[in-house]
Formats: sequence, C-alpha cells, structure tokens
Amino acid sequence: MTTATLDPSTAALSINGERLWDSLMTLARIGATDKGGVCRLALTDLDRQGRELFVRWTREAGCTIRVDAIGNIFARRAGTDPERPAVATGSHIDTQPTGGKFDGNYGVLAGLEVLRTLNDAGVRTAAPLEVCVWTNEEGSRFVPVMMGSGVYAGDFSLDLALAATDREGISVAQALQQTGFAGDAPAAIADGAPRFGAYFEAHIEQGPVLEDAGVPLGVVTGALGQRWYDVVVTGQEAHAGPTPMRLRHDALQAATGLMQEVVATALAEQPDGRGTVGYVQVYPNSRNVIPGKVVFTVDFRHADDAGLSRMDARLRAACAAVQAEGRVQVEVQQTVYYPPAHFAPELVAAVRHGAERAGLAHMDIVSGAGHDAVYVARTAPTSMIFVPCKDGISHNEIEDAKPEHLAAGCNVLLHAMLEQAGSAVEA
Amino acid sequence: MTTATLDPSTAALSINGERLWDSLMTLARIGATDKGGVCRLALTDLDRQGRELFVRWTREAGCTIRVDAIGNIFARRAGTDPERPAVATGSHIDTQPTGGKFDGNYGVLAGLEVLRTLNDAGVRTAAPLEVCVWTNEEGSRFVPVMMGSGVYAGDFSLDLALAATDREGISVAQALQQTGFAGDAPAAIADGAPRFGAYFEAHIEQGPVLEDAGVPLGVVTGALGQRWYDVVVTGQEAHAGPTPMRLRHDALQAATGLMQEVVATALAEQPDGRGTVGYVQVYPNSRNVIPGKVVFTVDFRHADDAGLSRMDARLRAACAAVQAEGRVQVEVQQTVYYPPAHFAPELVAAVRHGAERAGLAHMDIVSGAGHDAVYVARTAPTSMIFVPCKDGISHNEIEDAKPEHLAAGCNVLLHAMLEQAGSAVEA
Repeated sequence: MTTATLDPSTAALSINGERLWDSLMTLARIGATDKGGVCRLALTDLDRQGRELFVRWTREAGCTIRVDAIGNIFARRAGTDPERPAVATGSHIDTQPTGGKFDGNYGVLAGLEVLRTLNDAGVRTAAPLEVCVWTNEEGSRFVPVMMGSGVYAGDFSLDLALAATDREGISVAQALQQTGFAGDAPAAIADGAPRFGAYFEAHIEQGPVLEDAGVPLGVVTGALGQRWYDVVVTGQEAHAGPTPMRLRHDALQAATGLMQEVVATALAEQPDGRGTVGYVQVYPNSRNVIPGKVVFTVDFRHADDAGLSRMDARLRAACAAVQAEGRVQVEVQQTVYYPPAHFAPELVAAVRHGAERAGLAHMDIVSGAGHDAVYVARTAPTSMIFVPCKDGISHNEIEDAKPEHLAAGCNVLLHAMLEQAGSAVEA
Repeated sequence: MTTATLDPSTAALSINGERLWDSLMTLARIGATDKGGVCRLALTDLDRQGRELFVRWTREAGCTIRVDAIGNIFARRAGTDPERPAVATGSHIDTQPTGGKFDGNYGVLAGLEVLRTLNDAGVRTAAPLEVCVWTNEEGSRFVPVMMGSGVYAGDFSLDLALAATDREGISVAQALQQTGFAGDAPAAIADGAPRFGAYFEAHIEQGPVLEDAGVPLGVVTGALGQRWYDVVVTGQEAHAGPTPMRLRHDALQAATGLMQEVVATALAEQPDGRGTVGYVQVYPNSRNVIPGKVVFTVDFRHADDAGLSRMDARLRAACAAVQAEGRVQVEVQQTVYYPPAHFAPELVAAVRHGAERAGLAHMDIVSGAGHDAVYVARTAPTSMIFVPCKDGISHNEIEDAKPEHLAAGCNVLLHAMLEQAGSAVEA
C-alpha cells in the first residue's frame, strides 16, 4: 500500500495557507502584547498554555506525543515503515520579551500544517513524521540559548541545563515541573534520544536579504560560524581641558579605531563576513573627562571557518598594534565560538526541489543567526527554509511576514519532507 | 610712611611654606575622605565649617570680612590709600564629591599666607589687599559651575543662581540661609560690587604640562575657549547575524568615524587644540544587535577663537558628510560656548616678574580648564599662577602636589601682588 519513492499523486499537494495563518494568529494570542507582538518566555505559564495548545492540535491530527527530560516535545505521525527514523521538522514557541508572532512559531505550525494537509489528502508516509517544539531557544529567561536542541545534540549536559536559573532563582528543572513538561524520554542523543532521518526547519529570515532581492524563498545551505569577544582598552582618565593631546592616554580614541577595524575586517570578507560592535561602555562616561577605560564587544560571523580565523587574526593584530603604540593596554578575550554549519547537500537539494515543485523563485542563503537546526545538524542531515520578513526585522513586536510567503515556505516544507519520507495516497 | 613704588626691602620677602602646608592640611580635615581626599560640596555644613575657618583665620590676620548676596567672601586687609581698588587673590574651597586637598583650597590659603607674611614683616601696601572665596566653583551640587564669580562678572543673574536647586530640591538661596552665608553686599559688578585693581589666582595646574616639562611654575596667559556639543547618530537597529554589511545602517560605525574625526580635528590645531569624546551611549547596547542610535558628546578647546571656529566647521562638515552617505542621520547641537580668555599682559608680566624675583624656572601656559579667574578677567586685569600637581591628576582623592611647589607659587603670588599694590615696610 505504501512506497518509499515519490508518488506522483502527491506532487500537486498544497497546504492550506489560511489555516496556517489562523493557527499562527491563535497561538499569538497567548502572551499577546499591546503592540501586536508576543511575550511568551520559556517555561512560563504562558509557554505552558502554548505548549498545551500544540499538544492538543497535534493529538487532534492523530499524533502521539513524546516529551523529553528537557521539555522538548515531539509530535509523531506514524509511518508505514516503523523501522525508519523519523523525518522531522519544528522550531520553538518561546519568544523574546518583546518578540513577534512568527519567530519560531512559524516553524512549529508549518510542521503542524504539513501533517493536517497529509491527513486531509489521505497521504501516508513510509518514514514517520515528527514535529518538534524545542525548549528555550531564545535564551531570554534561561541561558544557554537553544537549550533544548543543545542538550539533544550534546553541546552541553542535561544537568547543566536543568540547573540554569532565571533572575528570580527559579531553575529550569523547577519550571519544567511547574509547567508539567518534565518528560521522561531521554533528552540527549548520547542518552538514547532517537536520531532523525532528516530534519527541516522553516523560519522567517530575520534579516533583509530575501526582501532586498525580491525572492520569496531562501534555500538555507548552512549557518555562519561565530566568534564573539570582549575587548577592554585601558588608558588613563584625565581632564579634557588641561591635558594636551600629546600627553593623553585616551582609551576611547584607541577603542574607536579598533571598532572601525572590526567593520573593515568584515568588509574584507564579503559576501559572508560580518563584524558588529553592539555593546560599548565608557568609563567614567563624563563629557569633559578623557575616558580611562572602554569595554566593547565584537561579534564576527563567517560562512567559512578559515575566514573566521582570518578575522580573528586581524582583530588580534589590530589590538596588539594599538597596544604597541604605548598609550593604552588592550585585552581581547574570545567568549563564544560556534563553527560554521554546512547543511547536508541532499537535504539542501530537497528544499530546492520543493521550491521548484511549488514553482517558487528561490535563492541560496546562509543563516546569519543560530537556530535549533544548527544543533540538530550535528546529529542528522538537516536543512532550513527561509521566508522573508518585513524590513528584515525580528525580535521585535513589529515583526511581520506575508501570509503568501508563509504559505509558500510551508509548501516547500511539505514537499521536502515527502521527498525524504516517501509517500503514498491511501486507497 | 608708604610709597606706591616697590620698596627694595620687600624684595627678599618669602612666605612660610610650612605654615601654608599646615593651613592646607587643617582645612583638608573638614570633609576628609578615607582615601586622602576631600568631599566638601558647596554650601553644605562642611563647606560652612571651612568658610568659618577661613573667616576666623583672616580676622586673626587683621582683615575685615564682606559677604555678598551669592555667598562670596572677601577678606580685606586695609591699604594706606583707601581710594585705590583692591589687589585681590583667591579661589574656592568647595570640592568635587571625590575631590582633593589642593584644587581651589590652594588659591585661597596662598592668599591667606601672603597676608600673614606681610603682617609678620610689617609690610603695608598702598592698595588694599583682598582674599576671595568664590561660591560653588565646582558645580557638583548646583549648576551653573563657577557660580559666585559668574554672578560677580554678570555672566548670569543673581536670581538665576539663587534659584538653582540640588538633587534634594534645596535651592542656593536656602543653602545660603542654612549656612549663614547669605550676605548683604551686592554680588554683581552691575549691582555695585567693587571692581578689583588686579586679580591673581594661584592654582594647581590640574594637567600634566608642567610636570612633563620639569618646570615648577606656570605663568598663565589665558584660558582655552570651549565649544561643547551633543551629537546623535540615528541608523537602524538590526540583528548582527542575519544582516549583511551592505544592508546595514550601523549608527555606531558612523559615530566611531566621527569620534576619530574629533581627535583628528584637534591634532590639526596643535599645540592648543583639544578634542575629547567623553560620553557615549549606544542603543540598545546589546552585543549581537547592530546599534540603531548612538549619542555622544564633543568637547573642543582652543586658545584662539578662530581656531575654535575652524574646529566647529570641520565637525559640522564631517557630520554632514556622514549623513550624505545616506545610511544614518546625524544631528549635532552646540551646548556650551566659552570664548578663549586672554589675561591682561601687565598682570601676566607681574607673575613673570614674581617668578624671576623668586629665582624660579617658569614657562607660559594656557589654562585648559575654567577657573573663577576667567570670569573675573572680564571685569579687571587678571592672571593666574600654576604649580604642578602629581601626574596631572585633579578632581580625584589622590590629587597631590609638592610642598616646595606650593610654597614657590605662593612666593610668586606675594611678589606679583606687592608689585601691583605698592608696599613699604613699617618703621
């Protein structure tokens, strides 16, 4: 009755864009803000409500539910071949404090819409399908960020994650108990959590590239690697009036030169190099005092690890050169390193095929931000699907996306999953 | 019995450096901090104690006391020619919250030491001598700064100064009543306050120039003019990860270029041009968010008003050029303008003569900071005497100066005042 190859009868399948939109708007009411955004921090009571809605919807769609020890939820639609690993999709439903309706939520509800579409059309797949809700992707309440997928992939331990506390001292373990999502399934691959046969994640781009190019769909080939730094420049505080230029040890003058170099370094690594100084603190920060100390951060990203290493070397050389001038001390410390992720070529191809099947203009794109998919990619073939968001704005209550783009991305997800899972229309 | 010309018998006069040091240390006990500094904010009870000590000491030295409506104190030693305007000196005894023992206090107590020396030697002067304590020079508790001398010179009105309030809402008028220093003498020249025949102010340099040159005495020829600005750069906040360099509106990248230009502008106006960015605020100031807004200050100083105007023009041109690139908006607003002060050549010469008489190496210097003398200079011939302070540090509890430098400066003050006042040793 089933076959592992593509059934031509599923080629014309299309998801229900209106139903997808309605699901998004319904979920967005939980934690809705006055400005049209959503505030639904991880493992709060609002997050519990959102999770229970997801569980109810997926149960209604015929799924069985598995919750693991870090609260990740897996809604499983059985396949005809129980031996095959699941073809999975998903994302997260926790938000930033002033988050939007689409970040994360879209990937979860696009997965739900795929299941509903297959149910309506009477399609069975060879491999089981799963829709995942990963715990605490945003990291607003608890760190590390991307906690659920990070535990799953083994980037850090379950114990470390469970012990993390919020500002009120409530631990992840306590919050899981309070919300009823302290599951008993193993959370980490190393502890026996199942590997997927394939994992897709649909997401708003959270950047301006697709909109700028006028292309409705991004085939995500990987994610930029990241190196973050704290830089401390120490000079000598002095009065702006009585201190001649030649006798100054102006920490800010040295620091702003380095900040310019951060951007120059990224510009030398186009198209994928990115360099950002986002945080600056000046001491004593008084208008007529020459700054004695400046602390700033550097965020470097690159699609290629060798490029990231070149950026690292250039930053360190610039810091050393400034210090060698003898007026200030410069300390540079790397605080974060994520290697670039290169998604599995066959899954990237599956997304591209899905776009072609849906008749959509598409372009290859590299994710600049981290996503649960980046962790999952360490454990299984993975790719992502990006759709444009208005003005590239995310993590903001005014985050917005067009219903037709969301529907298009969901159709691509449908066909990519079907290609990987194998399908047949029930008699 | 007296003569208006220099009496050779006063040429060998020398102040008592030990007594000067003891006075400084005694006054420094009022408001002494654990770290060796002084916290004696204007018109607090500690300031009252310091003022009363000054009044007692000068009365003991035979002075009459005049207090004006803004609380300035004038201790007057009679001259033999009551028609002549006073030859005056002084400074302030209020301090910064974490101030030192010498800033201001030195100028006041050097004046006292001059009077005591003349008393000991039985010297009478033709012109009366006055030692002034100006109210609220520091501006830490009440603004405007240099309040007492500013009212005296007419830069702002008595009413404006009396209405100024501290953070607790206490007005200057109330604080003057509370401390008993709401005097009845007119405060402003325009209201009948007497003009001086000459005014000298001895002060620690508060900068590193004398120490760097290894010269113990600075002949102050004037004060740098100042232009202060607030600059606001507005770009667009965006995620550091997903936003390619070419699509950014990075307010900090634009702002740091302008901050570099502030310093370059000052370097093009050497030796006297100074350019400082002391205050920076970045929004939202998060390490992985491209800054959407940066606010920073500019402090330009120059000995020459035309130079200050060139600096102003270059800053505005740089801001316009950055805005013209089309990525950010730049607003620049001047908040403060003080024209350069050029001290009276005959009084600058009197200080130089004093240094020569005392056998001291000396150099001409321009004050980078504001002082009461800068206001007084608008009303009478004025000059200043600088002595080195350790590492150029002031407005700091570790502010320090050498007893021999303080004594040397006081001797220069003695001879400069005698030259202006005319003297004779009593029979």
